[in-house]
Amino acid sequence: MSLLIKNGTIITATDTFKADLLIEGEKIISIGKDLTIEQGEIIDATDQYILPGAIDVHTHLEMPFGGTVSADSYEAGTRAAACGGVTTVFDFAIQNEGQGLIETINKRDKLCAPQACVDYAFHVAITDLRAEVLGELEDAVAYGVPSFKAFMAYKKAGLMIDDAVLADLLEKSKEVRALIGVHAENADLVESRTEKFLAEGKTSAWYHYLSRPEFVEAEANKRAIHLAKSLDAPIYIVHLANAEGMDEVTKARDEGYEIYAETCPQYLHFTKEVYKREDGRNFVCSPPMKSQESQAALWEGIKRGDISVVATDHCPFQSEEKDWGEDDFSKIPNGCMGVENLYPYMLSEANKGRISFNKVVELCSSNPARIFGCAPDKGTIAPGADADLVIYDPKQEFTITQDKMHSDVDHTIWEGLQLKGYPRMTFSRGRLVFKEGKFLGEAGWGNFIKRSLDK
Amino acid sequence: MSLLIKNGTIITATDTFKADLLIEGEKIISIGKDLTIEQGEIIDATDQYILPGAIDVHTHLEMPFGGTVSADSYEAGTRAAACGGVTTVFDFAIQNEGQGLIETINKRDKLCAPQACVDYAFHVAITDLRAEVLGELEDAVAYGVPSFKAFMAYKKAGLMIDDAVLADLLEKSKEVRALIGVHAENADLVESRTEKFLAEGKTSAWYHYLSRPEFVEAEANKRAIHLAKSLDAPIYIVHLANAEGMDEVTKARDEGYEIYAETCPQYLHFTKEVYKREDGRNFVCSPPMKSQESQAALWEGIKRGDISVVATDHCPFQSEEKDWGEDDFSKIPNGCMGVENLYPYMLSEANKGRISFNKVVELCSSNPARIFGCAPDKGTIAPGADADLVIYDPKQEFTITQDKMHSDVDHTIWEGLQLKGYPRMTFSRGRLVFKEGKFLGEAGWGNFIKRSLDK
Amino acid sequence: MSLLIKNGTIITATDTFKADLLIEGEKIISIGKDLTIEQGEIIDATDQYILPGAIDVHTHLEMPFGGTVSADSYEAGTRAAACGGVTTVFDFAIQNEGQGLIETINKRDKLCAPQACVDYAFHVAITDLRAEVLGELEDAVAYGVPSFKAFMAYKKAGLMIDDAVLADLLEKSKEVRALIGVHAENADLVESRTEKFLAEGKTSAWYHYLSRPEFVEAEANKRAIHLAKSLDAPIYIVHLANAEGMDEVTKARDEGYEIYAETCPQYLHFTKEVYKREDGRNFVCSPPMKSQESQAALWEGIKRGDISVVATDHCPFQSEEKDWGEDDFSKIPNGCMGVENLYPYMLSEANKGRISFNKVVELCSSNPARIFGCAPDKGTIAPGADADLVIYDPKQEFTITQDKMHSDVDHTIWEGLQLKGYPRMTFSRGRLVFKEGKFLGEAGWGNFIKRSLDK
Amino acid sequence: MSLLIKNGTIITATDTFKADLLIEGEKIISIGKDLTIEQGEIIDATDQYILPGAIDVHTHLEMPFGGTVSADSYEAGTRAAACGGVTTVFDFAIQNEGQGLIETINKRDKLCAPQACVDYAFHVAITDLRAEVLGELEDAVAYGVPSFKAFMAYKKAGLMIDDAVLADLLEKSKEVRALIGVHAENADLVESRTEKFLAEGKTSAWYHYLSRPEFVEAEANKRAIHLAKSLDAPIYIVHLANAEGMDEVTKARDEGYEIYAETCPQYLHFTKEVYKREDGRNFVCSPPMKSQESQAALWEGIKRGDISVVATDHCPFQSEEKDWGEDDFSKIPNGCMGVENLYPYMLSEANKGRISFNKVVELCSSNPARIFGCAPDKGTIAPGADADLVIYDPKQEFTITQDKMHSDVDHTIWEGLQLKGYPRMTFSRGRLVFKEGKFLGEAGWGNFIKRSLDK
Repeated sequence: MSLLIKNGTIITATDTFKADLLIEGEKIISIGKDLTIEQGEIIDATDQYILPGAIDVHTHLEMPFGGTVSADSYEAGTRAAACGGVTTVFDFAIQNEGQGLIETINKRDKLCAPQACVDYAFHVAITDLRAEVLGELEDAVAYGVPSFKAFMAYKKAGLMIDDAVLADLLEKSKEVRALIGVHAENADLVESRTEKFLAEGKTSAWYHYLSRPEFVEAEANKRAIHLAKSLDAPIYIVHLANAEGMDEVTKARDEGYEIYAETCPQYLHFTKEVYKREDGRNFVCSPPMKSQESQAALWEGIKRGDISVVATDHCPFQSEEKDWGEDDFSKIPNGCMGVENLYPYMLSEANKGRISFNKVVELCSSNPARIFGCAPDKGTIAPGADADLVIYDPKQEFTITQDKMHSDVDHTIWEGLQLKGYPRMTFSRGRLVFKEGKFLGEAGWGNFIKRSLDK
Repeated sequence: MSLLIKNGTIITATDTFKADLLIEGEKIISIGKDLTIEQGEIIDATDQYILPGAIDVHTHLEMPFGGTVSADSYEAGTRAAACGGVTTVFDFAIQNEGQGLIETINKRDKLCAPQACVDYAFHVAITDLRAEVLGELEDAVAYGVPSFKAFMAYKKAGLMIDDAVLADLLEKSKEVRALIGVHAENADLVESRTEKFLAEGKTSAWYHYLSRPEFVEAEANKRAIHLAKSLDAPIYIVHLANAEGMDEVTKARDEGYEIYAETCPQYLHFTKEVYKREDGRNFVCSPPMKSQESQAALWEGIKRGDISVVATDHCPFQSEEKDWGEDDFSKIPNGCMGVENLYPYMLSEANKGRISFNKVVELCSSNPARIFGCAPDKGTIAPGADADLVIYDPKQEFTITQDKMHSDVDHTIWEGLQLKGYPRMTFSRGRLVFKEGKFLGEAGWGNFIKRSLDK
Repeated sequence: MSLLIKNGTIITATDTFKADLLIEGEKIISIGKDLTIEQGEIIDATDQYILPGAIDVHTHLEMPFGGTVSADSYEAGTRAAACGGVTTVFDFAIQNEGQGLIETINKRDKLCAPQACVDYAFHVAITDLRAEVLGELEDAVAYGVPSFKAFMAYKKAGLMIDDAVLADLLEKSKEVRALIGVHAENADLVESRTEKFLAEGKTSAWYHYLSRPEFVEAEANKRAIHLAKSLDAPIYIVHLANAEGMDEVTKARDEGYEIYAETCPQYLHFTKEVYKREDGRNFVCSPPMKSQESQAALWEGIKRGDISVVATDHCPFQSEEKDWGEDDFSKIPNGCMGVENLYPYMLSEANKGRISFNKVVELCSSNPARIFGCAPDKGTIAPGADADLVIYDPKQEFTITQDKMHSDVDHTIWEGLQLKGYPRMTFSRGRLVFKEGKFLGEAGWGNFIKRSLDK
Repeated sequence: MSLLIKNGTIITATDTFKADLLIEGEKIISIGKDLTIEQGEIIDATDQYILPGAIDVHTHLEMPFGGTVSADSYEAGTRAAACGGVTTVFDFAIQNEGQGLIETINKRDKLCAPQACVDYAFHVAITDLRAEVLGELEDAVAYGVPSFKAFMAYKKAGLMIDDAVLADLLEKSKEVRALIGVHAENADLVESRTEKFLAEGKTSAWYHYLSRPEFVEAEANKRAIHLAKSLDAPIYIVHLANAEGMDEVTKARDEGYEIYAETCPQYLHFTKEVYKREDGRNFVCSPPMKSQESQAALWEGIKRGDISVVATDHCPFQSEEKDWGEDDFSKIPNGCMGVENLYPYMLSEANKGRISFNKVVELCSSNPARIFGCAPDKGTIAPGADADLVIYDPKQEFTITQDKMHSDVDHTIWEGLQLKGYPRMTFSRGRLVFKEGKFLGEAGWGNFIKRSLDK
């Protein structure tokens, strides 16, 4: 079926131009002036922007964690994604002890496939790197999953890998052409500080921040980057949230190393002050929001090109679950929502003049596609690419409230935020999945994306 | 008239995809799969790359200098440009003492307009910044010339401006939204060293290098950047050629300053060793080629994004004129050819794997267009943009020899260089101006491009 | 004659210990416990500190400048020195156009010798570096004057040397084992800014600061250091007064270069705010006092060892002369008093706990002696060294007022400053020249100090 | 009893001068010209240098380690010290699990006191930081032991403390005015690499180096410095041996942090190449010797003042014990000899012109005394200080051979090294303990030195 989007302004990572867009089936076919179709649907996008769909490379859906399971099922999470202009979702398949990598992927894929409302991919979070698992990395790459994650935090929870394992992963990743992402916080410091605060009766959400402040994250940033540089392996820092780590990333990139940093909208918008609020526990995620100075440093990093990706770390929990930590911050399940807010927030910041729209496309779509190996199908607007598109109305005023959101979570940390501009429609491989506030997609539509870093 | 280029691989600064390209008159109309036309010409570009035409923002055509005039007239220079895939040429209109800025532009435009084979624009080189001239900067911006150049070298030749004038220019440029480019070499050091060598009977081309080695250029790089940072004004370093200056650029950009650096193919390919050759004088240009270490630093700067532009400083002189300096390097007219070699050289380096094709497009076309204010007409392939295009054959082997070049110069420093891949055709605003080694354009076709940095 | 100072606490650049000190004639003979003498004078220094006399390596006495002559004759200046604990004064012999170096030294020596109340030495300020003058550097070194100064400022006044001359001096200095000091401010910027302010009717002392703010000095700091590093020659930055220059010094020293920086008490105590005072013109000197941030950076530089010397740039003018610039800051003779305040101010800061007393001795005595080649006679307390000594009472409260000062100047910028501790006596080569507020020396006592950097 | 040393050249950290030195009992009494005594001994030191005795702040005597005990008893080690000009030895009292700190000190003191031939002090190496042990730090400080050590390496051996413990120590040290020293190597990496090499049959001493190369040490240097900076606590890096760590130290010191680095003669003289020698196992210590580049960086660090101390890590094992690792480098007891070679080696380097004699005194005596709180009794030559002295003959040629050494070890890694100059005599608190190759002291003479960092 043909779909013609007329009179819009197309925005890619580098270009901005007025043109019509012709879609046949799941693919973009033509971009041009005065395109016409004989049959099919025509959408008028006058005064609207047409953007490639966002790619959220960092979500945790239906994830067992903190004594419960993250609140969004694959269906709910990808539905919310669609409604926020995210057309590809990367979820983490977390290896259980004793599990193989392909086994880990298959298990999650089986869960996800019938539910996915948009396309999806997996990173495997490695927690148990036995010799045979190291050997299996190459199989995972061949399977289309060339990205892995290592936790430098969460020692007690059994997720943490030590420096020797991280070094092994980095060395192997070079060999098999994979990319290692790291959650960088110093586990010993976090856990020791947490114990100390609890022992002292310091139990509020503010102590969540104080148990893992700037220097605790920065130490792990530096250590991870040191290892990557020393072994000359690429590395990807997930959810970077502090100024000193940001500087270290810049320094390493200046030296020519392939170091990528991701940050999240929550670090760009909130500061540690949220933990002093009555509902502070709702903002509890790790790493926590940091100082104003760190926030400013992240925006500077974006401007100079040393933040490569903005993604969400979407991992929401219900208010009731967050309340478990009312008297003990260590019992608050860690994680916040964001998959539906990523693109609207970043585009609104562009619309307000902070950065360019092209930059947002680069951070939220083109770079993720290129770095994680799903370009050229994803990540841009070009003939032959998947018709993963967002029609964005730069004039629409939108205030975020929980009732307008499409996830299964009963609250949002973004409550009350006023945005300038908002997505009007989202297309997933040519199919309209969101329009003017309503989800129009269906579970099971989304495909598993096989990726390769060799492209 | 319609022109359809079928089956090519389109390469922009960020994307690479197979598509057909439809041109109507001077403009790109559509990019798409399986495009058709009823009438007009069809070109098959199977296995070819389609690139935006290069923009050489640094040429000196028909320029009086060193007791003669640079060897390429506007016609010859823009003809050579067309044959090298350059579809827009920026030339320097150099203010004479007592001249006004608009007067300076008009005079050169009158000379250039009837000769131009491709589109062109001017920077004004300011040499006499009286109060009324400072006032005229705004007029020049309004006229479509928002870029100026200041020489920190050539004191005796009367081109040099001092630091106070440079500071005035930088401050004014912020106010009127213009960009100041600087030729950064320390004039006092160059001239003193030159005198000393000549007095000692050290007259060969090698002493041209020694009269202005790395530290002489680097000093001026640092000084220019210091002033720009201190006054918080953007600056553009032309023909950067040394490692220490490169570092300073990176440092300033990391700090968030709007500092741009340009380098040239000669600095990326040759080193100071050429000055020891018998024909060393043919390579005499300023700044001179530098050490292997500096060359490597420039390539690293390109890779990490701190070199924004590659342009040529095309300013050739005939062998006979170069011979004037056989016994006195200071008498060699300074300048080398390059406008026809820029894109072929850079694309060949991409084709050999050193950098990506997208990067070459960024450096030679998209960034120049964006930085100097002629996007979105120039600098990319998108509906609505000028049909300034190069069809490039990545398989063609090409050895540079003087007889294959299209300028009026009687030799080339690039003689014998073997390239992997070569432009097969060049289109200037939809018109075929070069095909398979032959120039097909005509003098007077090229338009003066009015530019604005506010876009 | 024997002199025994008993029961004092001796403080050198590294050690602090209680001991008696025995002086025979002009020399220190012994340091020890329970020393006795048969004949001679005994001074009880219980609860007092005994320090090596300060060496002020930067004064301008009886200097023709700004249409007048600096207010302190050699007699007045060295008298004030003695009363402030300075036992060696370095003055600048400024070369006139056409003058030779030895001629320059002799002329000043003839003036100084009959007046000097303490020992003295000269630097030659080179303003006219003809070939024969370059040749004469070696003679000056042999004569005992191995230190020279170059002005990067004062272009119109004819003092400035250009970068090529500075480079020549640096290269020559390596060959003949001399040290080049530079007054680093960017002459073109200073003079252009000055003209602009005056033309705009901005004539108050505040515009003196604005005509030469931080970046104007920092530029010249960077340029001087760049040249020294590039030519691998040592360099000495006189009166450093800004944070960015301080950083550049540190960076160069970290890289292993022999770069020395001197600052002055006025930069450590005052800020640019003084120029807003009604008597702002009295504080006019070049470089001017800077921001609080720059002041803090200088103290940090002292603490980490990257400021090597604190000296005064003593160059006072009478109030009447300062008044010439009441309506035109450019007419204010540049310079302030300090030779009598240097040691008391710095020791008071030590006494208040900011730095150690040893550090003050290092900065004001030991380093100057070592760097400028008059150790081991000067700069420490050791058997065999000249008995240039200060007995300091750490308990004495002292408020600086003009009437207590011993120079010929009719005011002091230090008026009203409360010091903790003050010199009680000064000895010059064993002779008591100052005691409890009274000058006891005589003109003609001071010797010319022949120096050598080879020691 | 009186002792008069006549006609020598006295060298302190800052001064060099000819004088006589008078000692009464254990103390220096006077320094002066032409001193005389009525009774007592007179030593002629014409053409000799008189230096403060060295303070070796890093030895492991009689230490159980690697399945044996280090080869030098307290008697043998302090005898060797005396014969090498070391007059104060700092040994490590290593806490056993469950032990208290004072208990740890007392136990070692009981062992050491009857054997000590020169004065001695202890650092406590903390391995088991229970809450009550943290509380005991203050007691140890009051006891005169204000310095502690933490191992970031030796995880399996049970010595390692984790980052949280290190952070606790650093925070506590600020409160009680103590100094934490760290052995910085990344334990996980060392142990994982070791296992891997052994599993691969790579068992020679060369793999000792490869199991802990530059980046493994540098990581821990960075981590330790990061923690110290973040907690604003001083830190002391023991036996720094790599260039990257050296840079990090310099950077932190430039930023104003109180970071000290110690290196050892073996890192200044040998490189990793020794591990390829047949007797490579004799050189096995941790950290291992590194690259030529690292060695050069350490010397540069010394020159610019960023290495504060040179000490030995003296921890020798007999050849037979070293042989245990002939087929498995992990079985080689880690450690080398050096206490007798420290001063002779460093002074020989000064004598050859690499650095000044004053610098050697600063590194080996004055800085150790000041940093570890035993000045002014130790670390300089001044009236009132302990008469810990070395008379050094700068003309004596000396080739190190095992038979000339005074420790109990049966070999030396310094075998065959030719020195320029050598100690002729050593005095410990006024008593001659070494003369012309012969040990003249006695066990039990040495005192335990109570120290305080508040002085």
